[in-house]
Amino acid sequence: MSIINKLVEIETSQGINIHNITPQIKDFISSNSIKNGQVLVFSRHTTTALAINENEVRLLEDIKVFLQKLAPESERYLHNDLHLRDVPEDEPINAHSHLMAMMLTTSEVIPIVDGQLALGTWQSVLFFELDGPRKRTVFLQISGERSGNN
Amino acid sequence: MSIINKLVEIETSQGINIHNITPQIKDFISSNSIKNGQVLVFSRHTTTALAINENEVRLLEDIKVFLQKLAPESERYLHNDLHLRDVPEDEPINAHSHLMAMMLTTSEVIPIVDGQLALGTWQSVLFFELDGPRKRTVFLQISGERSGNN
Amino acid sequence: MSIINKLVEIETSQGINIHNITPQIKDFISSNSIKNGQVLVFSRHTTTALAINENEVRLLEDIKVFLQKLAPESERYLHNDLHLRDVPEDEPINAHSHLMAMMLTTSEVIPIVDGQLALGTWQSVLFFELDGPRKRTVFLQISGERSGNN
Repeated sequence: MSIINKLVEIETSQGINIHNITPQIKDFISSNSIKNGQVLVFSRHTTTALAINENEVRLLEDIKVFLQKLAPESERYLHNDLHLRDVPEDEPINAHSHLMAMMLTTSEVIPIVDGQLALGTWQSVLFFELDGPRKRTVFLQISGERSGNN
Repeated sequence: MSIINKLVEIETSQGINIHNITPQIKDFISSNSIKNGQVLVFSRHTTTALAINENEVRLLEDIKVFLQKLAPESERYLHNDLHLRDVPEDEPINAHSHLMAMMLTTSEVIPIVDGQLALGTWQSVLFFELDGPRKRTVFLQISGERSGNN
Repeated sequence: MSIINKLVEIETSQGINIHNITPQIKDFISSNSIKNGQVLVFSRHTTTALAINENEVRLLEDIKVFLQKLAPESERYLHNDLHLRDVPEDEPINAHSHLMAMMLTTSEVIPIVDGQLALGTWQSVLFFELDGPRKRTVFLQISGERSGNN
């Protein structure tokens, strides 16, 4: 049983944007010749998140609209009273982004079978930037058996 | 440390329906004599999902109503403009189902202790069909130690 | 590869309250000298839940308000018709608490790297009581390699 870690860097754009990170996860599995096991995907920020769903461009727009209605940026939030908090000068106004992140997921675990990520046909691993632009990181950790081991 | 995989098939009904898959997970653990470890439960579709909660018939109805209000089928969604997408003829109108799936969970990991699923008293593992009827699959993966091993 | 289990007890207060359980998780990792691996955090009740986000006191208040709007206690829920269910006398009126729990998470898996929980700078593991006060439990399970092993 091997444990292998990797930190993936993602440069994001303004506001909400959704990145398909499935290719990076597949590369990580195949470059380590993992045959059987699982990969943990972990979002390392409080205004980013994960979901596994369809990477269809019009659906991704629907998702943005849905999240913006669910936690509107225009609402009154206590977290946005920066003058009442001890924060750096560049602290963003982003309570809505935290709430969106909590409605999505921070950790996902995906099975690896016969060297392949066992996703369904239409599933992609999506990384959500909810308060961009920023430099972000996603943590990947494989727990698995390598090919050729008995 | 053993890794054991199983694909569970579920035939679902029209619209939204919720299936208690706890018995299948318990059978999988006991039939493999797993003593200690964890089971990963993974929903393999973009319009199905998981949650761990109480399997009480009236609560399950409340959950359906709640999800339908959260992401109403009647709303205008870009994903539903099938004429603007390259899709098969039987492509369903189901943006709302994708949104509901994203509010629930794709992967859950549950501890196994002394050969038992370490769920709380009222917890069941619930599989959500959000765009039925279909033939669906849920992936189960045990990572654990078998009884009798030292 | 070691599997180590721990049940953490939490006494909660009235209504919705949020507990930062990161210190207990860090203690569990360091007291077992785990070098590399992961920790599974599992909420064992149907009206408690987990999220990983910022432990900022004003944000926690925003989150409570957000959850109360998402699943208002005052709504009509079938689960609350106690006279139509076979329940003990002290059964609480808490459909809204179940719905909130389902919008959050039951299981989170967090990487451990070089003996440290690999959380981002602002991330804390938050335990949500959604129908307190009660005595609750959270299950922790480490899967990892101890320091000093080869």
